Amino acid sequence: MSLDAVLDHIDADLENSIARLLDLMRIESISTDPAYADECQAAAQWLVDDLNSIGFNAEIRPTTGHPMVMAKGGAGGTHTLFYGHYDVQPVDPLELWDNPPFEPSLEETTNGPVIRGRGSSDDKGQLMTFVEACRAYKEVTGTLPAQISIFFEGEEESGSPSLVPYMEAHKDELKADVALICDTGMVEPNTPSIVTMLRGMATQEITITGPDKDLHSGMYGGPSINPIRVINKALAALHDDDGHVTLEGFYDGVPELPEQVAQQWRDLDFNADAFLGGVGLSVPAGEKDRSVLEQIWSRPTAEVNGIWGGYTGEGFKTVLPSQAHAKISFRLVGTQDPLKIQAAFKAHLESFLPADCKLEFKAHGASSASNMAIDHPAFETARNALSDEWDNAGVYVGCGGSIPIAGHFQDIVGLETMLIGFAQDDDAIHSPNEKYDIRSFHKGMRSWVRILHALS
Amino acid sequence: MSLDAVLDHIDADLENSIARLLDLMRIESISTDPAYADECQAAAQWLVDDLNSIGFNAEIRPTTGHPMVMAKGGAGGTHTLFYGHYDVQPVDPLELWDNPPFEPSLEETTNGPVIRGRGSSDDKGQLMTFVEACRAYKEVTGTLPAQISIFFEGEEESGSPSLVPYMEAHKDELKADVALICDTGMVEPNTPSIVTMLRGMATQEITITGPDKDLHSGMYGGPSINPIRVINKALAALHDDDGHVTLEGFYDGVPELPEQVAQQWRDLDFNADAFLGGVGLSVPAGEKDRSVLEQIWSRPTAEVNGIWGGYTGEGFKTVLPSQAHAKISFRLVGTQDPLKIQAAFKAHLESFLPADCKLEFKAHGASSASNMAIDHPAFETARNALSDEWDNAGVYVGCGGSIPIAGHFQDIVGLETMLIGFAQDDDAIHSPNEKYDIRSFHKGMRSWVRILHALS
Repeated sequence: MSLDAVLDHIDADLENSIARLLDLMRIESISTDPAYADECQAAAQWLVDDLNSIGFNAEIRPTTGHPMVMAKGGAGGTHTLFYGHYDVQPVDPLELWDNPPFEPSLEETTNGPVIRGRGSSDDKGQLMTFVEACRAYKEVTGTLPAQISIFFEGEEESGSPSLVPYMEAHKDELKADVALICDTGMVEPNTPSIVTMLRGMATQEITITGPDKDLHSGMYGGPSINPIRVINKALAALHDDDGHVTLEGFYDGVPELPEQVAQQWRDLDFNADAFLGGVGLSVPAGEKDRSVLEQIWSRPTAEVNGIWGGYTGEGFKTVLPSQAHAKISFRLVGTQDPLKIQAAFKAHLESFLPADCKLEFKAHGASSASNMAIDHPAFETARNALSDEWDNAGVYVGCGGSIPIAGHFQDIVGLETMLIGFAQDDDAIHSPNEKYDIRSFHKGMRSWVRILHALS
Repeated sequence: MSLDAVLDHIDADLENSIARLLDLMRIESISTDPAYADECQAAAQWLVDDLNSIGFNAEIRPTTGHPMVMAKGGAGGTHTLFYGHYDVQPVDPLELWDNPPFEPSLEETTNGPVIRGRGSSDDKGQLMTFVEACRAYKEVTGTLPAQISIFFEGEEESGSPSLVPYMEAHKDELKADVALICDTGMVEPNTPSIVTMLRGMATQEITITGPDKDLHSGMYGGPSINPIRVINKALAALHDDDGHVTLEGFYDGVPELPEQVAQQWRDLDFNADAFLGGVGLSVPAGEKDRSVLEQIWSRPTAEVNGIWGGYTGEGFKTVLPSQAHAKISFRLVGTQDPLKIQAAFKAHLESFLPADCKLEFKAHGASSASNMAIDHPAFETARNALSDEWDNAGVYVGCGGSIPIAGHFQDIVGLETMLIGFAQDDDAIHSPNEKYDIRSFHKGMRSWVRILHALS
């Protein structure tokens, strides 16, 4: 039977798979800096050439920014659409790298061998797990295992300005039975994880204006309202003493976990103390009646991400400022409506606004949470395939952050997405000395072989 | 009788008095910028020469910074010590001046003629009202009206680093019956004002640390405490809904106004609506049971002068910051103890501090309020003399800001101080196009003649 043969090929060819990844990592495809536009183009071309060499029909698709890569191949079975991104984060501060970020190297660590360099984990290493799985299939069996579309983006690290217009314009071509994304991590080093919930987000910036100019607090302190006092009071009232968000209707549309998922989370060997201890904390600060995993994955939050007003330099200046500012984000789950929540937040602020103060309320962005339909048959198929490969059974997990592409697949193309990734918490993505465990790379390739086999 | 003759001489010689002030204003004695050290020296020398020409024995007194001017003259009567400062504020932004700041000019305005230029009001114009009064006396009568010491400083606009060491070293020489300072304003354009209360101040900077590094609010938002939330709650609780400060023991040592002063304040034609309206406000934000004048002059306050934390740049960054910071000042009155209040504030913050957070509390400075002993006979003598000169009777007023020299005269030399100045609210001191009303200059000189006459 071909599965074992393909897995054996993965094992035998590991050194070459790593060599190909290192080739791709040497291309300095930093998307946010226009000086690296040619390198982004080169990375896209490298992928097109590679995909064409293993049975795909691949091509560069220009955009107003960095190009997309589109590839099609195989036939039959479940039609999957695989997404990844070939662009990488900038490398500064360069002096904190032990080796040049685009001269990747293999290193032994106490946790095993790793591939070190920019993009090793995010996302070149991860996307190559899928490409290598396809290659092994093709080399062993002569064909790809099923109908596969591949869609690589080159602007993920710079806000994806071309993504939605491109998807809108090519939605027919992007159709498939299910989407796959390899850009996430594992909840524990031995527990393969399928992300089925992504929190949405509503972000806003507020300015409260009191007096029409900065004042001397000796001359005006007392009778003149200080907008910092107003912003403090309004933001302090966002949470009650039990960590709940107090906005009117905030919890409308916040679902309880499906019991299957709740049980999986309870069974996880997740160490909340270690999670908080890793950042110098010990007491969970979220809703008191929820576990730490729920607080991150399945519960909504309100955070002040920035606040400023008055004199913030060295020394002291007794200014009574005209304005105070803050940036606030809400992480959303279930079917919480980001626009309703923005309206409730605005009403909350207005209720704290003295007659003399003005509120400027600027919505930065609003996106609903994504909740995958795990009753789609591909989910259990993939989870079982992952369970076969790893020490622990695969689990459905949440993701506290936002991965907009999953929402776009749902909204624009009508596709459910399985986010399956093999990154580890200590990969240092976006940071100096980024790494990817060779174990993640190796078992990641094998995982995709199993998943594609099961879906074929 | 000589008083009228001296007053007549003031009137007749006004043009020359103005010319002398313009001479002094042409010297660019900006104390905070070392490039102008020679100009500061020149201003001090100009004053020494001028004082020596009118019967004083004046000399330059070097310090480690800009020199002091000390002058002694006259005999008999109440021995007064007059303080002023010959240094001025920097002039930037230069482009906002209609004329070069050190090329003073006379201008007609809708409120009458003014002297325009840096230092016209703060403090060269004001200190020259006293010098010119002495000159008129000398020219008309051949002597100064009484024993007079003059003490001019050249570092008032740059933090007075040499002042306290100099006063400590020369406290015997500074002794007198009462100190006079001409560096304040009039509560209304026609109401001469003696400042008898100066608010003290306790300033501090606080930092609250939560997680030991900045976090991604998607990965950690919820269970990880956000120090901005903590600082918001702690600072929001500084005031109750009626504008009172909530710190334990905050109002210990806050006196009620003497009835004589309370009555004077009630009789003032002070327009609270215009005062607040001038800065775009309409509703007093201080203690609800106190008038606006009390809120500025005789009641203590708590103000957040600066707050910052997290991402404060353009756009949005969903950081959950490690730290939040604020600068807070308390204005103090009566016998409030600044050190006790700093301790109460620290305890207040600690009561809001979750187990996981750390507080860094840095005291920037602490000074008690100054309250002049208005039962000293010189006060009523001076107030009556002022009442004779101006349309309205003289009043005892407060000053919301801090004028440390008055406290130093009390603490170091044991002197009560009468702060009598003729500046108007619209003089734009410290700002471009600073001016001094010629009426203030003229009637200011006449006021000092009357006061010196009465005290002689």
